[in-house]
Amino acid sequence: MYRTHTCGQLRITDTGTTVTLAGWVQRTRKMGGMTFVDLRDRYGITQLVFNEEQNAELCDEANKLGREYVIQVTGTVNERYNKNKNLPTGDIEIIVDKLNILNSSDTPPFTIEDNSDGGDDLRMKYRYLDLRRQCVRQNLELRHRMCIEVRNYLSNLGFLEIETPILIGSTPEGARDFVVPSRMNPGQFYALPQSPQTLKQLLMVAGIDRYFQIAKCFRDEDLRADRQPEFTQIDCEMSFVNQEDIIQTFEGMAKHLFKSLRGIELNEPFLRLPWADAMRRFGSDKPDMRFGMEFIELKSETENFFADKAGFAVFDDAKYVGGIVAEGCAVYTRKQIDQLTDFVKRPQVGAKGLVYARVQEDGSVKSSVDKFYTPEQLIAMKEKMQAKPGDLILILSGEDAMKTRKQLCELRLEMGERLGLRDKNKFALLWVTEFPMFEWSDEEQRLMAMHHPFTHPMEEDIPMLDTNPAAVRADAYDMVCNGVEVGGGSIRIHDPKLQAKMFEILGFTPEKAQEQFGFLMNAFKFGAPPHGGLAYGLDRWVSLFAGLDSIRDCIAFPKNNSGRDIMLDAPSAIDQKQLDELDLIIKEN
Amino acid sequence: MYRTHTCGQLRITDTGTTVTLAGWVQRTRKMGGMTFVDLRDRYGITQLVFNEEQNAELCDEANKLGREYVIQVTGTVNERYNKNKNLPTGDIEIIVDKLNILNSSDTPPFTIEDNSDGGDDLRMKYRYLDLRRQCVRQNLELRHRMCIEVRNYLSNLGFLEIETPILIGSTPEGARDFVVPSRMNPGQFYALPQSPQTLKQLLMVAGIDRYFQIAKCFRDEDLRADRQPEFTQIDCEMSFVNQEDIIQTFEGMAKHLFKSLRGIELNEPFLRLPWADAMRRFGSDKPDMRFGMEFIELKSETENFFADKAGFAVFDDAKYVGGIVAEGCAVYTRKQIDQLTDFVKRPQVGAKGLVYARVQEDGSVKSSVDKFYTPEQLIAMKEKMQAKPGDLILILSGEDAMKTRKQLCELRLEMGERLGLRDKNKFALLWVTEFPMFEWSDEEQRLMAMHHPFTHPMEEDIPMLDTNPAAVRADAYDMVCNGVEVGGGSIRIHDPKLQAKMFEILGFTPEKAQEQFGFLMNAFKFGAPPHGGLAYGLDRWVSLFAGLDSIRDCIAFPKNNSGRDIMLDAPSAIDQKQLDELDLIIKEN
Repeated sequence: MYRTHTCGQLRITDTGTTVTLAGWVQRTRKMGGMTFVDLRDRYGITQLVFNEEQNAELCDEANKLGREYVIQVTGTVNERYNKNKNLPTGDIEIIVDKLNILNSSDTPPFTIEDNSDGGDDLRMKYRYLDLRRQCVRQNLELRHRMCIEVRNYLSNLGFLEIETPILIGSTPEGARDFVVPSRMNPGQFYALPQSPQTLKQLLMVAGIDRYFQIAKCFRDEDLRADRQPEFTQIDCEMSFVNQEDIIQTFEGMAKHLFKSLRGIELNEPFLRLPWADAMRRFGSDKPDMRFGMEFIELKSETENFFADKAGFAVFDDAKYVGGIVAEGCAVYTRKQIDQLTDFVKRPQVGAKGLVYARVQEDGSVKSSVDKFYTPEQLIAMKEKMQAKPGDLILILSGEDAMKTRKQLCELRLEMGERLGLRDKNKFALLWVTEFPMFEWSDEEQRLMAMHHPFTHPMEEDIPMLDTNPAAVRADAYDMVCNGVEVGGGSIRIHDPKLQAKMFEILGFTPEKAQEQFGFLMNAFKFGAPPHGGLAYGLDRWVSLFAGLDSIRDCIAFPKNNSGRDIMLDAPSAIDQKQLDELDLIIKEN
Repeated sequence: MYRTHTCGQLRITDTGTTVTLAGWVQRTRKMGGMTFVDLRDRYGITQLVFNEEQNAELCDEANKLGREYVIQVTGTVNERYNKNKNLPTGDIEIIVDKLNILNSSDTPPFTIEDNSDGGDDLRMKYRYLDLRRQCVRQNLELRHRMCIEVRNYLSNLGFLEIETPILIGSTPEGARDFVVPSRMNPGQFYALPQSPQTLKQLLMVAGIDRYFQIAKCFRDEDLRADRQPEFTQIDCEMSFVNQEDIIQTFEGMAKHLFKSLRGIELNEPFLRLPWADAMRRFGSDKPDMRFGMEFIELKSETENFFADKAGFAVFDDAKYVGGIVAEGCAVYTRKQIDQLTDFVKRPQVGAKGLVYARVQEDGSVKSSVDKFYTPEQLIAMKEKMQAKPGDLILILSGEDAMKTRKQLCELRLEMGERLGLRDKNKFALLWVTEFPMFEWSDEEQRLMAMHHPFTHPMEEDIPMLDTNPAAVRADAYDMVCNGVEVGGGSIRIHDPKLQAKMFEILGFTPEKAQEQFGFLMNAFKFGAPPHGGLAYGLDRWVSLFAGLDSIRDCIAFPKNNSGRDIMLDAPSAIDQKQLDELDLIIKEN
């Protein structure tokens, strides 16, 4: 036993007790004849006191302690004269009479404080020092607690956590696989799972009934911001259920997690929004519902507000015109509006321009299109937009309704940000449902599964598979929180005939389907139950609960955007002997 | 909702209720005008009744149901006339009035019963059908419960479960790594972790203090019986602890698991046996302590019972002579003893022969070496062996004491088996401690770390590192249950200087050590705390609790001895496009 207490444990009621603590030297301060040392461990910080007058030799030793030295001290708990209200241990200090240096430390390359001076690369290279910072460690603690809560919640509902293998077969559908050469089967490769999707479906065929797994998944993608080559999913599947059963179960889990981890009671049922409505009203399949600013359409499949009032070619030639109302933003300066115009014209957003209209205090409208429309037309427009005096109307238009909606969505989020409506401590959850079954791929010149090829179509849309597959909706659902898709899933196909038809629509020959998914299609011949499920992105969900901007900080040892672990310096070259054993040659470029 | 109840739920108190069930057809029986169907799901079996007289059409449909069809039925709970005491639902049956076939099934390739007619290969190919068998599914349920118990137990003690990466760097020390080519870093490879050993030590440097993880580990070894290329470890590490702290913590966890999962109270502290004693008394570093039959040495480093009584060259020339007493086995026939002689002479055991001595009812001794020793010598030997009338003494001898002890260990286990002393429902746990630090490798012509190069030597043996490293004992410990090593670990080195010396003894140049373990040695420069830990083999531990002979049956989708998943048909060839993206060429042989 190196210690009797942790550095976060002692209180005023412990005064007079002899204790032994161990931890890291956070900082030392010399004041008069006293040396103060802040001793830190995972649990907190305790102040140590060395008195030169009482023990000069010991105090001398303390003065030599460097930052991050590991020490063990024995002493007496004493009430502090200057109490520190910011620390749970701030009422006491330890009058030290024994000091044992357990390990020294080189000077760390950055300060071990919440506000560190370390840049991202340095922090990642010395991640073991970065993790000593309370603000980083707390994310891992939250992640741990979330996993414990998820496991106990699902286990209590009869779900079994079942480990599925990491070394499986490669299936080229979907993202790119990481592959693992097999030494015992030369020329052959395992693949790392992109998700346990097919395996959990096999578990349903196996009668497991309720399965979950907090599972590592792997995708060899070019890493956009905030993607990791390995990530973690809360992966779930149930048998003999329909969409409603799954939504009930996992909405319950979400509410439980908010309550137990954040103390937030979400009493109302989550909103459910069909995909088409979400796109129409918010331009997104993952709308941020912490604020309104819904789209109002002036021209679309169903609207044509400016019809017969033509004059402005940009609107007249557009397939879609729609806008949002920024409350109280009529005061925006020309410069601020120019910034917004620049924002929507950035290549990442891609709009051609921005039309704005300020609603004056007297109800009249001052807009960037005054010369094309009469004041009456603009007032009618304002009314259509439900804008009040003092509001700013922002309008986008374009050839392609869906593209323009997505641009308007970016503008809406930007305005939400500017107006402080995207509060990290507020959570707005909803289910987006009725996704399209397929999306057209220009690259592949074929319909692709929007979710994956095992998704069940909505029962009433099945006849359209033959006549108009592009219009078929999927029995699929995403859980969205604050504009982030935190989870999603679907009812799966359990009928081998329907599955075969699906592969046909997706352009698989029966041979190709058999080659890639034969193991699953064969299994479905032996009594597959109706089933469905969903998966949460654990990293994303922890980030959301922790209020992080990036998933990186809730992962102990993340990789950078080149897929490198710069602490371990991985990946790296391997020995020729290893390559030989695997019968592999690296191509010279 | 496909069902109101599961197939394991209904009882006599539910009589009269209208219920809907869903599940698989286990079997159908036609008796008179009635058709009985056993409906099965994960939770149990419920008998369905179709009455030809009351509903001929429905009964007709029921008669067409094949094995493993998936059906949904609605009906009324009825008290059974012939109650089945072997089923929790055996008091009731369902009088069905609605039948819905959810899916049909081909005839399964083996019977879905505890006593299946399916061979191992067939069961593995159709693992999703094999898992429908209660006896297999129960192992997965036990595994799930064990993981939940472990997690909650450790979490309550302040341990944080932290996920360490699966894509790390290759370290040639130890077993062979599986490697993963990196597309984004051409010519470079990730490795899959053989264990999170170095990463958990980095977490201790990071101040995590108490870490655990139920972690997937990977070893590309030629698979002996009961090894898997991927397996699961309960991996733990603690800071500011010594061996006693770790033993206390994990002995507590073991006791908790036995109590919560098997209802067994283990109240006594586990025996602790230094490695040298374990080898001397049982010839094994993982002795099966469910029974006695301890070795008694007649000739060894410290004994020389037959000294000056020479005559039998086999004993006279041996470095070691030792035996065991098989109680009541004097009645063994010549044939039985020949079997034992054959057993010890098998190449897997490797003894040259077996000496035996029967203790007669009158206390005299009849042995295979009667012509070499006087009756008085044999009676003295019997007394030395503490054998009673009716006992059989079995003696091995050899040139190499350690080798002979291991042979005698095999004989002891075989006798334990024959005498029914290795009861699967009895559990004998102990700690084996004071392992040698190093073992000599004839192949590599150098000392190798017996555990791994980060193991701390026993404090008092540190001076011997310079003078006699082969005699240094490690601060290491294994938990052993019923002759199986279920877990093991050590106190780690936290002093960079001691670590450098260790690498030197193991034959690493400073450059090689830096190349392979630089990331860890660098981390240790920044204040590594004293730390240690252990890891349990989860698969092995579940098998032990479940009374299985192989770890394979507690793994959902195991691989065979060639590392293949025959259900998924993995590993397999990959597309040329995938190889090209990875800059890899497969060598033609």
